[in-house]
Amino acid sequence: MKSEHLHAFSAPTFSSRTVPLASTPPDRWALARIRHMVANARVRFLLWDGFESPSTAGAPVGTIVFRNRRALFSWVWDPDLNFGETYMFGAVDLRGDLVAVLNEIYRALGPAKPRPWWLWQRSNDVRAAKENVHRHYDLGNEFYGLWLDREMAYTCAYFPTPASTLEEAQVAKMDRVCRKLALKPGERVIEAGCGWGGLALFMARQYGVTVRAVNVSSEQIAYARHRARAEGLADRVEFVEDDYRNVRGRYDAFVSVGMLEHVGVADFHALGAVIDRSLTDRGRGLLHFIGRNRPGPLNPWIRKRIFPGAYPPALSEVFDRVLAPWDFSVIDVENLRLHYAATLRHWRRRFDMAAGDVAAMFDKTFVRAWRLYLAGSQAAFITGSMQLFQVVFARGSTNAIPWTRCG
Amino acid sequence: MKSEHLHAFSAPTFSSRTVPLASTPPDRWALARIRHMVANARVRFLLWDGFESPSTAGAPVGTIVFRNRRALFSWVWDPDLNFGETYMFGAVDLRGDLVAVLNEIYRALGPAKPRPWWLWQRSNDVRAAKENVHRHYDLGNEFYGLWLDREMAYTCAYFPTPASTLEEAQVAKMDRVCRKLALKPGERVIEAGCGWGGLALFMARQYGVTVRAVNVSSEQIAYARHRARAEGLADRVEFVEDDYRNVRGRYDAFVSVGMLEHVGVADFHALGAVIDRSLTDRGRGLLHFIGRNRPGPLNPWIRKRIFPGAYPPALSEVFDRVLAPWDFSVIDVENLRLHYAATLRHWRRRFDMAAGDVAAMFDKTFVRAWRLYLAGSQAAFITGSMQLFQVVFARGSTNAIPWTRCG
Repeated sequence: MKSEHLHAFSAPTFSSRTVPLASTPPDRWALARIRHMVANARVRFLLWDGFESPSTAGAPVGTIVFRNRRALFSWVWDPDLNFGETYMFGAVDLRGDLVAVLNEIYRALGPAKPRPWWLWQRSNDVRAAKENVHRHYDLGNEFYGLWLDREMAYTCAYFPTPASTLEEAQVAKMDRVCRKLALKPGERVIEAGCGWGGLALFMARQYGVTVRAVNVSSEQIAYARHRARAEGLADRVEFVEDDYRNVRGRYDAFVSVGMLEHVGVADFHALGAVIDRSLTDRGRGLLHFIGRNRPGPLNPWIRKRIFPGAYPPALSEVFDRVLAPWDFSVIDVENLRLHYAATLRHWRRRFDMAAGDVAAMFDKTFVRAWRLYLAGSQAAFITGSMQLFQVVFARGSTNAIPWTRCG
Repeated sequence: MKSEHLHAFSAPTFSSRTVPLASTPPDRWALARIRHMVANARVRFLLWDGFESPSTAGAPVGTIVFRNRRALFSWVWDPDLNFGETYMFGAVDLRGDLVAVLNEIYRALGPAKPRPWWLWQRSNDVRAAKENVHRHYDLGNEFYGLWLDREMAYTCAYFPTPASTLEEAQVAKMDRVCRKLALKPGERVIEAGCGWGGLALFMARQYGVTVRAVNVSSEQIAYARHRARAEGLADRVEFVEDDYRNVRGRYDAFVSVGMLEHVGVADFHALGAVIDRSLTDRGRGLLHFIGRNRPGPLNPWIRKRIFPGAYPPALSEVFDRVLAPWDFSVIDVENLRLHYAATLRHWRRRFDMAAGDVAAMFDKTFVRAWRLYLAGSQAAFITGSMQLFQVVFARGSTNAIPWTRCG
């Protein structure tokens, strides 16, 4: 399998087949422009012929090397997109610790200017949603099994201590979700976007609830169904290959871990309507999602190569569009961004160890793209340009809410 | 002291000096209109001559009695305002448990329709803010001492268990605030809207920080300064009679308990600017305030008689206007509305026991108005038409945030 999953150009645009010429004054002007954008980054830049723009902010943590003129000018033209493009195709190299270099870049850029979502985002209808999910989540269960935990949880873990293992932390996350929802035996739970089914099975096994779990990824649903049968839970956990908009029935709790960032603001109202019609009078819910301090576009390279259609929302976008129209009350919010940075550190370590297998499954461009995506995500959570929110909510009219929280 | 503090009419508008006439068909039409507004309320209505509109929703929890025609028609004209007006002046009586009756009314009305704040709210400039606060908080330390706890905390307490005493719960609340802020000895804290100074003194005494606490209520500041001297904390807690907008200096933590609902959305940006310029690079803060599930006006009677200039905001209004412009991250949100209902239950019990003293200080109209305000607030928190939010935030760029939360 090659990296058509990245919707790659058939030939890398930025590759140079000939030895590049010595750098010229226009090249140096372009480099100065790029340096100016990240003036405070402790990073050294090098051109293909050895020309250097040194760090002016302190001892450099790493070096960014432009291998040719086309890559250099692509950064002047559209740095947000072409950082990733040039790196994945090998026209730019990063020397030093990848996350450390990216931290410097993120910090030097500072918080993104807020931009309203409707300037650049469109609705993910049922077909688009399925296609977007297919491109990422159907890369193969075997691929994800190389570097995810035993439970195949592809969302932020919760580390009781920073030294907890990834396996412990993913179980702790699932348990935390259940305790925040105060699940009781015999209750009915609807899960939207269930991944490989780990949480649904955990809820049924550990908390005695019955679960209906929906997901549009056919590879994930097949895996989850197999696990439910193998663990003797098929009578209590039903995995349904369907869009969240088609959910029917009434449930005591609604849970969604890592789906909201794929929904898009244009469909938040529809999601709220689904939650409203799905919950009983005493119903409550939990949304776990990647978010932002304020509205702004997702990095265009991530949207193009990694997560088409994705949008990490600000809390107020979720509250105003998913919860408020139905008079849901916000009960509890927790920001776990440092836990996502830790989760990504574990994933990256495992991914790097499996890089040879990944290259054999796909190709080297795929490995470079995913290495950048994982490192860039870790840097985004470390520098605070991304947040991870867990939001617990309940019907405004119910007093069946916890007196004190679970910790 | 009479109830000029309620800005009352010099003569109660709704009093009848003559024996009212028997009710007529127009009176019964008006009563039917009122019944229709709260059709699902298990409440009986009575007119002055004994004419009854029975509860159609179940056994009534209480009875609302109109003593004259003017009171009856004032409810048709403006029920939100005149419920309170007619009750405080004795033209309407509530028989049965006051909170139970008000719960029925709130539940029957359902969630208020969202309305944008700019349709009805104007800015509280420094002078208006001082006058608004004076009208409520300068009613006399002696008055508040009759029914508040030892610490004179006039904000939602935190009851570790529902059976905790009010004194325990107010101390638990202060401790919870300090733990959420992770205060360390020697740190500098700025408190905006410090009431009678209980929290500022607690932070200095129990957590070893130095505090600058501002408040525009001169009665409260005088009381707080006296306490600081009496407790030997005057060198570590400075009480300043000033508007939050005049705060200067840099601090490790910003805390405000029960002020935000008096600020008003129009001045949220200004408050955010104060917080931004007050906090160090690793700074964090806590906002504790009465809020709503979605934007909407405060009850007009409460605004007229009890809290001029007040506005309980939706979380998204706070996030979008106070926090997001300065790239603050939301770290933790907790909804304590059931704790505020419990706090009000305690306050009401003490207030009722002291009602004779209060009537002697003010008059019977004042007692009725405050009884309705306290019972109505309790009902609002029980029925979910008001929320109590504690929001912890931090600079977007700092990683000096808690790894796990304090419980």
